[in-house]
Amino acid sequence: MQNFVFHNPTKILFGAGQIAAIGPEIPTGARVLITYGGGSIIKNGTLDEVKQALAEVATVEFGGIEPNPTYETLMQAVELARREHVDFLLAVGGGSVIDGTKFIAAAIPFDGDPWEILSRQAPIRAAVPLGTVLTLPATGSEMNGAAVITRAATHDKLAFIDPSVFPRFSVLDPTKTFTLPPRQIANGIVDAFAHIAEQYLTYPADAKVQDRFAEGLLLTLIEEGPKALAEPRDEAVRANLMWTATLALNGLIGAGVPQDWATHMVGHEITALHGLDHAQTLAVVLPAMLQIRRLDKRAKLLQYAERVWNLTEGQEDERIDAAITRTRDFFESLQVPTRLSGYGIGEEAIAPLVAQLERHGMTRLGERADVDLERSRQVLELAL
Amino acid sequence: MQNFVFHNPTKILFGAGQIAAIGPEIPTGARVLITYGGGSIIKNGTLDEVKQALAEVATVEFGGIEPNPTYETLMQAVELARREHVDFLLAVGGGSVIDGTKFIAAAIPFDGDPWEILSRQAPIRAAVPLGTVLTLPATGSEMNGAAVITRAATHDKLAFIDPSVFPRFSVLDPTKTFTLPPRQIANGIVDAFAHIAEQYLTYPADAKVQDRFAEGLLLTLIEEGPKALAEPRDEAVRANLMWTATLALNGLIGAGVPQDWATHMVGHEITALHGLDHAQTLAVVLPAMLQIRRLDKRAKLLQYAERVWNLTEGQEDERIDAAITRTRDFFESLQVPTRLSGYGIGEEAIAPLVAQLERHGMTRLGERADVDLERSRQVLELAL
Repeated sequence: MQNFVFHNPTKILFGAGQIAAIGPEIPTGARVLITYGGGSIIKNGTLDEVKQALAEVATVEFGGIEPNPTYETLMQAVELARREHVDFLLAVGGGSVIDGTKFIAAAIPFDGDPWEILSRQAPIRAAVPLGTVLTLPATGSEMNGAAVITRAATHDKLAFIDPSVFPRFSVLDPTKTFTLPPRQIANGIVDAFAHIAEQYLTYPADAKVQDRFAEGLLLTLIEEGPKALAEPRDEAVRANLMWTATLALNGLIGAGVPQDWATHMVGHEITALHGLDHAQTLAVVLPAMLQIRRLDKRAKLLQYAERVWNLTEGQEDERIDAAITRTRDFFESLQVPTRLSGYGIGEEAIAPLVAQLERHGMTRLGERADVDLERSRQVLELAL
Repeated sequence: MQNFVFHNPTKILFGAGQIAAIGPEIPTGARVLITYGGGSIIKNGTLDEVKQALAEVATVEFGGIEPNPTYETLMQAVELARREHVDFLLAVGGGSVIDGTKFIAAAIPFDGDPWEILSRQAPIRAAVPLGTVLTLPATGSEMNGAAVITRAATHDKLAFIDPSVFPRFSVLDPTKTFTLPPRQIANGIVDAFAHIAEQYLTYPADAKVQDRFAEGLLLTLIEEGPKALAEPRDEAVRANLMWTATLALNGLIGAGVPQDWATHMVGHEITALHGLDHAQTLAVVLPAMLQIRRLDKRAKLLQYAERVWNLTEGQEDERIDAAITRTRDFFESLQVPTRLSGYGIGEEAIAPLVAQLERHGMTRLGERADVDLERSRQVLELAL
């Protein structure tokens, strides 16, 4: 096991009805900016429920944060928050709203152009505290200090990580996911699966607990994912899915082990240039990435084959092939295509994607920093 | 899954050499009381290492906190801390030192007799902040808000839990465990095992992740425990053991599921009256407790048999018997006897133990609150 620091101070309020408990979690006298996305939380009553829980609190609202939240939109919220002297942010939505709200939190007191938080990883000296009400199990943003933001004007999709933007609290109410479209649930399952793979399918680090936990999360996704689509109002299933997605990226399974993230970095460019959902890009890139890097990941792929897919027969290479195929089939079974061609993207797209990776300095990706532009190109070709 | 609140703000500094990193974790200008046990940290150099890391910090020391830390000893530390105007506590040791330090932290500002924190669960309005340097993987106290304290004069062994006594940080350096006697390592493995069993072997709550995590921790103990005894200086093994013991009782696997703790409550009385090590009492009580309550715990015992011990053949009752036998054999393989007779305790001890349980109000134990004094007596008889 590698040395590590683990510190996750987010308080989780889990279960049906927990929105009613957020009042005491907001600092006394705080002026709260409630942020949200396209407005589904207005239609389904979640915003009203939040406002009822905050009846004694002064609130301002900012809606319209889009999937792959943009710098352009978020800066409008920053201006509003500065004008209104907001001192607490409450994100109500999925990973995009939460990621966007983290950027708002860091940008409000930032001295200079907040884009520098992303473009040159400018240090964050302070951030406005935030809480979240999660409506979509997927990104894990509700219990970590990371965010991914897009600049629409330049097609840049970049990330920042800072302890100051860990949510103070997050409400995880599985019943809030009942009305989500199947595509978003499927995307969430793929997203969580890929997060686990990025921290698990690397090389062995003799980290027995982290491996067992990662495998336990993958097994839960495989068991509960299809049920979540077939029976959308099964609260127990949605609860397991929600907690799994949170634990997939809260720092726990990644503590003390090597991490990859090449799939995410390549996927980000596909979203930036072609507008695919984030999870769709992961479903496309991950199987190809594992195939291209199968030698480097051999030991963990064999462990994955055995413990997650129960593949113990046949030659080792056959087991690895079977495990990658099962992974692809699992994503496809959720109606998430795993080939670029499934989204109408052809060979001509590869050179521009590789050029974007180069422009963003993504030339040494992966747990061994050996995924150069050539290997990324090979991955994209295999993903056609 | 049941609704739950999970909030664990302890910062973990994991790995060899991490003691050197504690300086910045202590509030600026704090006057620190370093607490420890019987003095092994003086002999093995750990105390010097701590003092070197705190070279810029004003420190006071208090040694002599015993296994099953006593109110009598701890109150001396409270007086010292009050006299010296201490404003941060640093526990250097195992679970007893850390538990004792949590009591000191809560007692220093307590108005009245601090024994009431234990005897009548008096509310804790403030506690002095504390950090820990863990030297013995076992209790999980380094990442939770619980403590068990003994009053020597009356043979009372009682617990309290409060968010204010979560350590601000804990150093987990596996190399600090190299010089521990085998008995303490074995005890630690049994202790962690029992902590997991108390949160896992209850009744199904459709909490898939919590179950997988609990099983992963048990499998790791079974795999790494014997190696930890056979190869005391294997850092990777000790690292896995240390992180497992912490995660066994940091709130994660117990969130959203029923919990038992009857084994612990009965075990506490055995320590209080007969002085057995805490883990020895758990090794004695747990197998008998599972046997006596096998009907109530049937579904989870079958899951445990299959997923932890790979027992899938034969009748269900045979599998349950085999799983309980494997549990007992595992403890015995670590040289921890699993019968009261193994510690020279006979039938005449049972009535006084049951009387102690009654005196402490332990008349409705377990996840269904149905372990009354009669069932506790049955457990103790089966454990003879």
